Amino acid sequence: MRELRVTPIKNGTVVDHIPAGMALKVLKILGIGDGVTSTVTVAMHVPSQAMGWKDIVKVEDRELGTREIDKIALIAPTVTVNVIRNYNVAEKVRVKLPDRAVGILRCGNPNCISNSHEPVESEFLVKTKNPLRVFCKYCDRELEDIAANIV
Amino acid sequence: MRELRVTPIKNGTVVDHIPAGMALKVLKILGIGDGVTSTVTVAMHVPSQAMGWKDIVKVEDRELGTREIDKIALIAPTVTVNVIRNYNVAEKVRVKLPDRAVGILRCGNPNCISNSHEPVESEFLVKTKNPLRVFCKYCDRELEDIAANIV
Repeated sequence: MRELRVTPIKNGTVVDHIPAGMALKVLKILGIGDGVTSTVTVAMHVPSQAMGWKDIVKVEDRELGTREIDKIALIAPTVTVNVIRNYNVAEKVRVKLPDRAVGILRCGNPNCISNSHEPVESEFLVKTKNPLRVFCKYCDRELEDIAANIV
Repeated sequence: MRELRVTPIKNGTVVDHIPAGMALKVLKILGIGDGVTSTVTVAMHVPSQAMGWKDIVKVEDRELGTREIDKIALIAPTVTVNVIRNYNVAEKVRVKLPDRAVGILRCGNPNCISNSHEPVESEFLVKTKNPLRVFCKYCDRELEDIAANIV
């Protein structure tokens, strides 16, 4: 069975402590789909001492940008992002819910100026973090389904 | 890095030799999404001697039914399905494109009787296997996007 084992990665990113069930959403945020050209490993519903169950996503040969990490924080604030270089954890980032989410969410109000063709970047204010409630800076509407409205 | 390694599974199914890029479609066929309650591991775009690049899906504590395997064959005829029991490969199934696909595809013709509310199960005849071309038994229309029409 040795050939079926997934080994540690040499360079890349490990997104750990994803709430169980959210791994496929993280893949979507990272734009990982049919056309992926680097190795990606996903473990869903694995035992976790801290969380009971968790998901893990490992992406080889890629480090994440701030905006990608902010998007992940919105759906999975428990996540830790480990940057791996030459088999070692070079950086460990605990994601943090930002106070405002700029350019990463779509307002649910079709008449909102951020949904017009104006050159206005969407912006949401985080009102409470647990439960997470965010409000559009422009039209003040609360965003209902955050995961579905990540751009 | 040892804790990030994904170990062999004790019981379950390993779907191996999936064409690179098709792993997420295999998950969809298996109904594996946000609500999965057994451990699932996915490796995308890993090196393969036989194929260049391949995907792998491992599902713990689950063996696949014939209909699920037939669905996978339609999008990934290269697949091998390994049934694992107590860490050993108990069965190795090389999937085979069936001559007819019954109840697993949706006809693209909205007026086809198989899309009405009649108690008619969809049925497609496999005309050629490489490239794969299938035709509805009822309205004779060719199904264009097979992967998108798996039910």
